[in-house]
Amino acid sequence: MDKYEKVSELARRRGFLFPAFEIYGGVGGFYDYGPLGTLLKRNIENKWRDLFVRREGMVEIEATVIMPSTVFEASGHVAHFTDAMTTCTRCGRAYRTDTVLSEVGVSFPEGASMEMLDALVKEHNVRCPECGGELTESQPFNLMFRVYIGPLGKGIVGYGRPEAAQGQFVDFKRVYAAERERLPLGIAQIGRAMRNEIAPRKGPIRLREFTIIDYEVFVDPEDMSYPRIKKVEDVKLRILPAEEQLAGTNRVYEVTVREALEKGFIKNEVHAYFLALSTIFMQQLGIPLDKQRFREQLPEERAHYSMQTFDQEVWTERWGWVEVSGHAYRTDYDLSRHMMYSGEDLRVFKPFGEKREIEEVIAIPNEGLIKRDFGDKASFVLTMLKRAVPEIVERELKQKGFYELPGPEPLVLKPEHVSFERRKVMASGRHFIPHVVEPSFGVDRMFYVVMEYAYTEKGDRVVLKLPRDLAPIQVAVFPLVTRDGLPEKAKEVYELLLDEGFYVDYDESGSIGRRYARADEIGVPICVTVDYQTLEDETVTLRDRDTWKQVRTEIPPLPEKLRKYFGYRMEFPELGIPVE
Amino acid sequence: MDKYEKVSELARRRGFLFPAFEIYGGVGGFYDYGPLGTLLKRNIENKWRDLFVRREGMVEIEATVIMPSTVFEASGHVAHFTDAMTTCTRCGRAYRTDTVLSEVGVSFPEGASMEMLDALVKEHNVRCPECGGELTESQPFNLMFRVYIGPLGKGIVGYGRPEAAQGQFVDFKRVYAAERERLPLGIAQIGRAMRNEIAPRKGPIRLREFTIIDYEVFVDPEDMSYPRIKKVEDVKLRILPAEEQLAGTNRVYEVTVREALEKGFIKNEVHAYFLALSTIFMQQLGIPLDKQRFREQLPEERAHYSMQTFDQEVWTERWGWVEVSGHAYRTDYDLSRHMMYSGEDLRVFKPFGEKREIEEVIAIPNEGLIKRDFGDKASFVLTMLKRAVPEIVERELKQKGFYELPGPEPLVLKPEHVSFERRKVMASGRHFIPHVVEPSFGVDRMFYVVMEYAYTEKGDRVVLKLPRDLAPIQVAVFPLVTRDGLPEKAKEVYELLLDEGFYVDYDESGSIGRRYARADEIGVPICVTVDYQTLEDETVTLRDRDTWKQVRTEIPPLPEKLRKYFGYRMEFPELGIPVE
Repeated sequence: MDKYEKVSELARRRGFLFPAFEIYGGVGGFYDYGPLGTLLKRNIENKWRDLFVRREGMVEIEATVIMPSTVFEASGHVAHFTDAMTTCTRCGRAYRTDTVLSEVGVSFPEGASMEMLDALVKEHNVRCPECGGELTESQPFNLMFRVYIGPLGKGIVGYGRPEAAQGQFVDFKRVYAAERERLPLGIAQIGRAMRNEIAPRKGPIRLREFTIIDYEVFVDPEDMSYPRIKKVEDVKLRILPAEEQLAGTNRVYEVTVREALEKGFIKNEVHAYFLALSTIFMQQLGIPLDKQRFREQLPEERAHYSMQTFDQEVWTERWGWVEVSGHAYRTDYDLSRHMMYSGEDLRVFKPFGEKREIEEVIAIPNEGLIKRDFGDKASFVLTMLKRAVPEIVERELKQKGFYELPGPEPLVLKPEHVSFERRKVMASGRHFIPHVVEPSFGVDRMFYVVMEYAYTEKGDRVVLKLPRDLAPIQVAVFPLVTRDGLPEKAKEVYELLLDEGFYVDYDESGSIGRRYARADEIGVPICVTVDYQTLEDETVTLRDRDTWKQVRTEIPPLPEKLRKYFGYRMEFPELGIPVE
Repeated sequence: MDKYEKVSELARRRGFLFPAFEIYGGVGGFYDYGPLGTLLKRNIENKWRDLFVRREGMVEIEATVIMPSTVFEASGHVAHFTDAMTTCTRCGRAYRTDTVLSEVGVSFPEGASMEMLDALVKEHNVRCPECGGELTESQPFNLMFRVYIGPLGKGIVGYGRPEAAQGQFVDFKRVYAAERERLPLGIAQIGRAMRNEIAPRKGPIRLREFTIIDYEVFVDPEDMSYPRIKKVEDVKLRILPAEEQLAGTNRVYEVTVREALEKGFIKNEVHAYFLALSTIFMQQLGIPLDKQRFREQLPEERAHYSMQTFDQEVWTERWGWVEVSGHAYRTDYDLSRHMMYSGEDLRVFKPFGEKREIEEVIAIPNEGLIKRDFGDKASFVLTMLKRAVPEIVERELKQKGFYELPGPEPLVLKPEHVSFERRKVMASGRHFIPHVVEPSFGVDRMFYVVMEYAYTEKGDRVVLKLPRDLAPIQVAVFPLVTRDGLPEKAKEVYELLLDEGFYVDYDESGSIGRRYARADEIGVPICVTVDYQTLEDETVTLRDRDTWKQVRTEIPPLPEKLRKYFGYRMEFPELGIPVE
């Protein structure tokens, strides 16, 4: 059994995580969290929330999972959120073309086109992994779950969101106003998202329904500084730059945040700050620094809107490096497309203080050419251009040679479709679309790596060494024996700790050794044993999960001591637990 | 403006709750929570979780929102989760038939059949509310959002869950084992659910996507006692029994839990216990006892599986009595259907201690008749009967005269299709399907009533008197003026309180009076003002939201005092705030 199997067995048996609809044989890509898993998962989410949102003075929202098609036409998901799918001509099974290639060891660049993948299938004569049949040419398969909102024929098409982020973009205007128009403004969402994967395997690593944390940090593109960067300047990061991957050397640089910025590994402070926070966070989840790295995405695998993207990866025994978070610099891509598609002005305003002369860009559509090239879509194209921010259209046409408009199918503007003029005007401030730096975390994957790194064996026993503030059950209370009033006394202690807000288990069955073993296996940091001496002097024995050391302490101050212990503020030196 | 409009205006403007996809004109039945709303909503959820789960020693799980069709074929949702829908023959708009009738003042019994509704439409010549056109006969419209899992033609049909509960039933076996086979076992879920309402209005009261709390309490039907009932025996409940509704008298009885059980208003202790807890919970949310009631559902409006159901209702200004939670006694309905449909034995086992003679029931299908009546479905019917618990089939046939099998379309067994035999056997214990008592809460509705009851006006000012442990922002810190080092000192206090885990706002813009007003409007219980005296003696002014009284206190002990204050453990008597 490798560690994945061991962790999975424990997760199933003790109710952390298991395949959903098991009694019906399960469906690939769906997992359920049991009682302990739900607590652990929530502890991870709350810890993230506390570090990235509350302490940062930022905010969180809850948008809907189902969103109308318009939203994903604007975002580009309807047109582009696809995987290349191939089908076996003999058995009819469907596969991701890239997966089929990887599994027989054919390599290809990340972000390879469908045509390139098909050519490789042909070249290497790759066949159906199940029956050996011939594979079809690939088709694009949209990964969104489609729903129909309202009665058939009278409603509209919608989708289960494949990421949470669109909620922040669609709600940006309202949230920005409610937050009294401050930048940088981080808006987080922690919630379900869905992707209709073609044939998910890899257990909890690739799910069709998952919990995502999308954090959109809106900033002024003319001021990408982040004052709090000073707090993390000396934090060490491990970075695998794109060039090292292209060169095949794959060297990972361990540098401080300051060095990473100086050396140009990271392009701006906001990005750097959240890479640092994510490193700290992962360490707090129990992943040592040398088991994490930030892999910079290669230009061709980056989403077209991103200027720089890092994948935070954690080393796992079964799957090697697994992405647990992605850090994309999404620029003004999303808001500018929603602005065009909805017709709402999504720019923000920054006053100069006094009026000033500025240069304004005006887009002048070449109507004749647009009518020729877009036919009956010409008036749509003209409307989009009227709503667009001219500076952005100009920039994109210059940088990429084309500009794709929002819509169910992509319409692509070329430089000849629009010209630009400049004029001087007096203005009291700047109108601009904020740029977005986006840290995005996969909660289920973090859950899995937390379990894998906490999983240890001590002789024939399993000890789940979860960071103590993540432990689903904080304290287990045992009577030494089930007679002479010990259970009653132990239940008193149990009730006391419940009253004080702890997650507590009471267990009186089996030998004390077996009870310790059961508690170790699910990562209970502290076991409290009530014995005969308790009845005399109101003291109990605390026993530590990791050192197995014991210490006697009085009951009345116990809640306060435990509170400090779980807040990492005081050690029980006798237990051999260092303060962190 | 009625209170609903006032609350909605505040909710939109300050970022509590607003229509989703507003920039695209919105879609009926979808709302998003803004920064303050997300915090308030989570505080409500966490309070529920603490009271109903942690302190009860019960558990919570997280199952998926998308579930395969099989699950809902077993539960009966595919066949029965429909509303009667009528369409205008002129303008094509679709309506719920019952809503159209209600809106013109035609009354009908809850749970009225489609035929009855259509007859009433005809009798009263009810027309399209929009254009006056004629309405069609009703069609059943299934309210589940349908999705397709996997590539088209190669995957399976699934649905967005219309309730969370099926997750608990499908996972019961695993969770029961992980929890070491104890009963009663409460398994909660807090999560998204979806219903494709035909034409939702009523703002946040009727949503297409909503957060549900489903709590399935599994019990031994032969022992429906609940020892903790003693803790709530004197809690007062307000009950509107079914008979009072049938008689048209609608008398509400205010009785203690003990009396409600003695008088037979509530049929068992488990049910009674959770009605009591729900009353307490609603009071803690700020809803006075006299604004809540439990309306017993009439026999014809009850789900067919439920033996007794209460709706917990709260009085609202706009909509009158609104259901915030439902309390159904679901018996063994769900587990027995999943047992048949999946073929997994979902019974639990209770040992007698020693072997004992018991009577076993055996179902003997009338194969000839089944083949004649069910044709090519006969073998399916026989399989279901083989997997069923004979005692349950016998009981249902006896009580109702028919027994509906799980499946995409209902197949109905009649008494003549199966006979029963009894035989004595020696057994070491009982195998049985646990019964389920289900409290189920609508989080969005609770959120709305919390807002409505907290909303007060004081002169021309709005004060949102949220229970202090629900307040999204706990403390606001202000420097009296923005000079002489006061902002720096105030930021120190702000950082201190952040470090100590509080949700804190810092605000230095506008007069101190305006800042108090802004804080009152979003329900901040305590404002801390830093003034010149602070620089001399490290004291600050605390100001109470509800009494507007002020008290000076020292900074160092402030976190500890506030912690007690928010835990309702100590009063600041000077602020005039009673301990609750």
